[in-house]
Amino acid sequence: MTVKEEISAKDKALFEAGIKLGALYHQFIGTPVSTETAKELETAIENSVSLQPWVSAVKVEIDREKVRKWETESPFKYCELRGEMLDVEVVVRYEDVEVHARVKYDEQMDYSLMRVEKIVYYT
Amino acid sequence: MTVKEEISAKDKALFEAGIKLGALYHQFIGTPVSTETAKELETAIENSVSLQPWVSAVKVEIDREKVRKWETESPFKYCELRGEMLDVEVVVRYEDVEVHARVKYDEQMDYSLMRVEKIVYYT
Amino acid sequence: MTVKEEISAKDKALFEAGIKLGALYHQFIGTPVSTETAKELETAIENSVSLQPWVSAVKVEIDREKVRKWETESPFKYCELRGEMLDVEVVVRYEDVEVHARVKYDEQMDYSLMRVEKIVYYT
Amino acid sequence: MTVKEEISAKDKALFEAGIKLGALYHQFIGTPVSTETAKELETAIENSVSLQPWVSAVKVEIDREKVRKWETESPFKYCELRGEMLDVEVVVRYEDVEVHARVKYDEQMDYSLMRVEKIVYYT
Repeated sequence: MTVKEEISAKDKALFEAGIKLGALYHQFIGTPVSTETAKELETAIENSVSLQPWVSAVKVEIDREKVRKWETESPFKYCELRGEMLDVEVVVRYEDVEVHARVKYDEQMDYSLMRVEKIVYYT
Repeated sequence: MTVKEEISAKDKALFEAGIKLGALYHQFIGTPVSTETAKELETAIENSVSLQPWVSAVKVEIDREKVRKWETESPFKYCELRGEMLDVEVVVRYEDVEVHARVKYDEQMDYSLMRVEKIVYYT
Repeated sequence: MTVKEEISAKDKALFEAGIKLGALYHQFIGTPVSTETAKELETAIENSVSLQPWVSAVKVEIDREKVRKWETESPFKYCELRGEMLDVEVVVRYEDVEVHARVKYDEQMDYSLMRVEKIVYYT
Repeated sequence: MTVKEEISAKDKALFEAGIKLGALYHQFIGTPVSTETAKELETAIENSVSLQPWVSAVKVEIDREKVRKWETESPFKYCELRGEMLDVEVVVRYEDVEVHARVKYDEQMDYSLMRVEKIVYYT
């Protein structure tokens, strides 16, 4: 067993990328949404993530087909944002390391998977 | 003691107005915000409330002075939406009754008070 | 059109009952839960609602069958609290009026309906 | 510039630790709490974090002094959980790597800092 207390730029970037995905997921899931308001909700989520430390890019996509399906079937013609509707890519840069992470619904697992897609070193 | 199980249009409108304020408050408190993104967050909250049943109008104001103060003092130049920054007016119409409700920070109580401001009858 | 700015004890109780349901729904939806932790989550929700002004009783039931179904099918053996799992009864008393309200999933509408079940007058 | 698409066990553990802290923070901030209910809320948060993938330990502490101060000054004798009240340590183990992370309020920064405290290798 080895214990390390020094944290590298890369460690920090990975950790911060996780924070951003965990935070946005639990902040916005449940928000009322419709096909008409989805665009503005995407922008609001992008803005809120962009403000956080070390975020260099973020792209949010809400699945219009799923929103349409839910709102059509709902008695009041809207739905709540669900994990299965969300696809978010976030890029965190800490010093010379950039982590590209993403949360996207995995149909087969029926689960919103968060994962690191790539790590870029600017050295 | 008298028990009434029949609910009038007015009862329903009052109840629904409460739902809207309770919901938006707990959905959006904690969202990262800055003076630059406040306008779009206001719109996103307005949209999400408007979608809900029987809402006929909604106006959201985020106190820019408070956001500015928090973001200036914060190490990362943004802040989280707090109850004391929010002023929301929502109008719920159910049949011929309209309830105007509001959540607004009360400085003296240091509390975000939700209250019914007026009831309008269209009969 | 008649405008009324005076709010009765009954108006207030109805409005407050709505606030409680809207708030708890958007606060707790999304919380990770399993059949093993459901009991304690029910208690935590009951506690948090009980603290709020004019709440005289609250009972939370999380549908174990639905939790079991989701956790069994999930790749990581837990699920997130969803509206369809929640049945909450809350009693709000304001002066001499008591409102009994409830949020419960309606299978046919596929919607978590919030409604006033009865109003009790202690006069 | 070097791009790496292979993610190590350590990368994954760091990322997952971030997810857990980001998620719990945005899930539970805003929950009504008092000195009487703090213990049970701590347990509920611990349970919900424990359920998530690769969490091997979690300890939640809600600062009773701050809760007491807020509830005493509040008109309704309770308060909402705020970042400054929370101290959470979470341990994530992925394969042979363990990440110890923590969110704790930093008085001087007036900010809830999330950080990796140590990394343990079981090889």
